[in-house]
Amino acid sequence: MPVGTAGTVKAMLPESVAATGADIVLGNTYHLMLRPGAQRVADLGGLHRFMNWEGPILTDSGGFQVMSLAKLRRMSEEGVRFRSHVDGSEHMLSPESSMEIQRLLDADIVMAFDECTPFPAEKGVAAESMRLSMRWALRSREGFGDRPGYALFGIQQGSIFKELREESSKSLQDIGFEGYAIGGLAVGEGQARMFEVLDYAAQMLPDDRPRYLMGVGKPDDLVGAVARGIDMFDCVLPSRSGRTGQAFTRRGAVNIRNARHAADPRPLDPNCTCPACRGYSRAYLHHVFKAGEIISSMLMTWHNLHYYQELMAGLRDAIGAGTLAEFTAAFRAEQAEGDVAPV
Amino acid sequence: MPVGTAGTVKAMLPESVAATGADIVLGNTYHLMLRPGAQRVADLGGLHRFMNWEGPILTDSGGFQVMSLAKLRRMSEEGVRFRSHVDGSEHMLSPESSMEIQRLLDADIVMAFDECTPFPAEKGVAAESMRLSMRWALRSREGFGDRPGYALFGIQQGSIFKELREESSKSLQDIGFEGYAIGGLAVGEGQARMFEVLDYAAQMLPDDRPRYLMGVGKPDDLVGAVARGIDMFDCVLPSRSGRTGQAFTRRGAVNIRNARHAADPRPLDPNCTCPACRGYSRAYLHHVFKAGEIISSMLMTWHNLHYYQELMAGLRDAIGAGTLAEFTAAFRAEQAEGDVAPV
Repeated sequence: MPVGTAGTVKAMLPESVAATGADIVLGNTYHLMLRPGAQRVADLGGLHRFMNWEGPILTDSGGFQVMSLAKLRRMSEEGVRFRSHVDGSEHMLSPESSMEIQRLLDADIVMAFDECTPFPAEKGVAAESMRLSMRWALRSREGFGDRPGYALFGIQQGSIFKELREESSKSLQDIGFEGYAIGGLAVGEGQARMFEVLDYAAQMLPDDRPRYLMGVGKPDDLVGAVARGIDMFDCVLPSRSGRTGQAFTRRGAVNIRNARHAADPRPLDPNCTCPACRGYSRAYLHHVFKAGEIISSMLMTWHNLHYYQELMAGLRDAIGAGTLAEFTAAFRAEQAEGDVAPV
Repeated sequence: MPVGTAGTVKAMLPESVAATGADIVLGNTYHLMLRPGAQRVADLGGLHRFMNWEGPILTDSGGFQVMSLAKLRRMSEEGVRFRSHVDGSEHMLSPESSMEIQRLLDADIVMAFDECTPFPAEKGVAAESMRLSMRWALRSREGFGDRPGYALFGIQQGSIFKELREESSKSLQDIGFEGYAIGGLAVGEGQARMFEVLDYAAQMLPDDRPRYLMGVGKPDDLVGAVARGIDMFDCVLPSRSGRTGQAFTRRGAVNIRNARHAADPRPLDPNCTCPACRGYSRAYLHHVFKAGEIISSMLMTWHNLHYYQELMAGLRDAIGAGTLAEFTAAFRAEQAEGDVAPV
């Protein structure tokens, strides 16, 4: 899922997002509740109409971002009281208010309100945090109510502790959700440890429901996580990297800022069919990045979202064909070759 | 002509520029010679290929911008010696080097190198400046050489003095150009005085060649200038205003930053068929402008370019139908009504 934080996948028109192959985008409850405000979005017909995106939208609960972005936050059993980073105004996020805000936004997939346990955390702290999230998960389910056609996802926590992940999974399944996310990863533990957790954590969740790994990740994170049973991802990496001049390709990352691209007539990736690769040389992309032109963000973001969607489509096809191991091996070999030398 | 200063019409993909109805764009010799460099552009196949624009390109001579942007410029009969505003490197622009640079860029329409006489100028100063430009016009013609399929335009100068405009027109026609521009206007003299000059200056130029009014302007500047015999314009106004939140509409300018748009579900202009008006509310455009989102520049620029192209198409149709006076009257009446009140 491309990330459309504040009602826009940055530097992309929605029809261009759809053209990359994306059929669902993520919106951020924290950003949208502060600006333009959830009631405002509802009055304007909901987030789909507001941002001109006809496909499904998943919104996060606001929990993760309120912890990292808001000023003067104060957590309690009830929820999180905080001041807006935009204008300093005071707000409260709780399971109930998060459900209400996500309903006002008209999200198709609503995320339960939870605490993303910081890393590292001692087991006792991680257990307390996870159990709070499980109590909040129940309140989220109750606050969500009966809304046919809409889905509520629970979020597994438990840091890097298998028993805690197990306990969390059981709590969530006792409540019952339309889908299940894995939270509290990609928070500094590193890929090896993340994969160790995924090795058991994904399988704890029902295999007839989507499994969503939140906030991940780099291309090889996605490939490794899919092999471990994950179905869905969101990450700002392809769009944010695009704006800072980093392209993801079959042969690894390309930093277009690098002077070696300044006279290079080749596209970022000769096998890529995105508009940036079909229409422009590396030299052009280097030039517009250096000149601070908006088209740099537009083309680089488009390329990266296209690459991510193509990677996920390749993984889906490989699973369907029973060739995931071969796909993964080929992916790794190609990435390891590195970017082609300039002519 | 939308302005594509540094190899991009800011915040637009070339296919979107074409979708507004534009069939020619302008590139800036001064910017492109400094970054990425004219030889670099030539090595990469010329400006069309570089910026992925298949239609015609007109480049200015660099004269106007070197006077206003470069550091430490020194003018002589030969040309202008200056330091780049990008990296301080020293360069020379002369009629001969401007022709060479525009050839390297592969511009379809090349502008003669001239001095844009500052305003106000005493008649003696304006005469000296105009005569220098006429000597440079001859050197431009000679430097341009014989290039079938490419066009060189001469530029009339003479400030606000009829005899000087007359003398300049004769000099240019003695040399002979594929098209003629009017320079030295829209430099602070005001619309009334600009129209006074156009009343006589346009008619001095051959009516079987395009007449191009450089650097103009606001919508009512265009309408008034077309009525006085002008065929072509370039201006950064629609694109630059788009980036600063100003939209041009049938009913005048709309500043989307204004708080009165924050909850307004209507489009910028209900009769406009551009993507910004078809897909988004003023409330959305207000929100993304306030949030500093790139899509704000993308949509507002698209709207403005669409509006300008539609205005020019309307003027062409009216000329064809012999109804220019009626078109102009209807245009003025609609502009005078002002932006529709919010619901």
